[in-house]
Amino acid sequence: MAKILMGPQTLIYPMPVLLVGANVDDKPNFMAVAWCGIANGEPPMISVAMRHHRYTHRGIRQNLSFSVNVPSTDMVRETDYCGLISGSKINKVEVCHFKVFYGKLDNAPLIEQCPINLECKVVHILDLGSHSLIVGRIEETHISESCLTDGKPDVSKIKPLAYTTAPARQYQAIGDVIAKTYSIGEELRARE
Amino acid sequence: MAKILMGPQTLIYPMPVLLVGANVDDKPNFMAVAWCGIANGEPPMISVAMRHHRYTHRGIRQNLSFSVNVPSTDMVRETDYCGLISGSKINKVEVCHFKVFYGKLDNAPLIEQCPINLECKVVHILDLGSHSLIVGRIEETHISESCLTDGKPDVSKIKPLAYTTAPARQYQAIGDVIAKTYSIGEELRARE
Repeated sequence: MAKILMGPQTLIYPMPVLLVGANVDDKPNFMAVAWCGIANGEPPMISVAMRHHRYTHRGIRQNLSFSVNVPSTDMVRETDYCGLISGSKINKVEVCHFKVFYGKLDNAPLIEQCPINLECKVVHILDLGSHSLIVGRIEETHISESCLTDGKPDVSKIKPLAYTTAPARQYQAIGDVIAKTYSIGEELRARE
Repeated sequence: MAKILMGPQTLIYPMPVLLVGANVDDKPNFMAVAWCGIANGEPPMISVAMRHHRYTHRGIRQNLSFSVNVPSTDMVRETDYCGLISGSKINKVEVCHFKVFYGKLDNAPLIEQCPINLECKVVHILDLGSHSLIVGRIEETHISESCLTDGKPDVSKIKPLAYTTAPARQYQAIGDVIAKTYSIGEELRARE
């Protein structure tokens, strides 16, 4: 199988699309982010990479708290809009008709229409070059009751979005089930 | 829309599944990781969260380099196996029939069968609690020629896997295209 060198590249596989929220000068703002990650298990932490000059970044530094909201496929228009426009010019909450609510933290605005909402407190900010890597401890998780099956989160109801980078530049749904985890690999034990 | 509180939770939306590689005591080993993230743009960096006692973790600390390999849906069996078993007991490369090659870095083993391979040098290791967050600078990207269309990466040929956590516990394909990025959101500009 021939391999081609592409030089150092980021985001070459699809990543989850999230709406990261913060209060900036006491007003809620949201930006679309695909450069996110899970950072720790106990306590639960998440990471978000953000350019230094971002308006949302300013709010996160003001309050040392932020939110992570998981939009569903039917919010793709609003999600894309939140990646197109800066909150310094436009009130995105109004344009997107977001219903904003708060949980445990005073300055982590949450979007009611998003099926999942995380409230996060900043524990680290690493300046890595073009971006800050912001690590937040998850303080609370909210899920829409309509996205539960037997009281548990159901991905087929949450309908999250994946972001596929250039040249495709598209939002994609999470697709067919390929296999169960910690299960199909057992088949290879016969080769041990 | 009623919301339910779930307490602090990680991995509540599907994440990409990657095979992270390192040489441990000079022998290549790979583990399945979904707790990854994009950390920086220029220079390109990636983050991986890993429990401290992991065998692969030991190799990363020995060499301060690692690889990130993107498996395709037809490698789901091998990928799952690499999440089931520790390299301290089993030679996963042999069991999985991985063809290992090296690029720029001497100690970042790459899997030829994976359509995308990143070579990374460690720039930060943050101890966050149960896990270390390992931040690596991407030194080189390899892509299988068969996964290109007009010389560019084609997600429909790469066929990456997403990991959906409990209660589903399943690997899923990347699915239908929902919309183009930096495009569909323009429809909301009329509301500004």
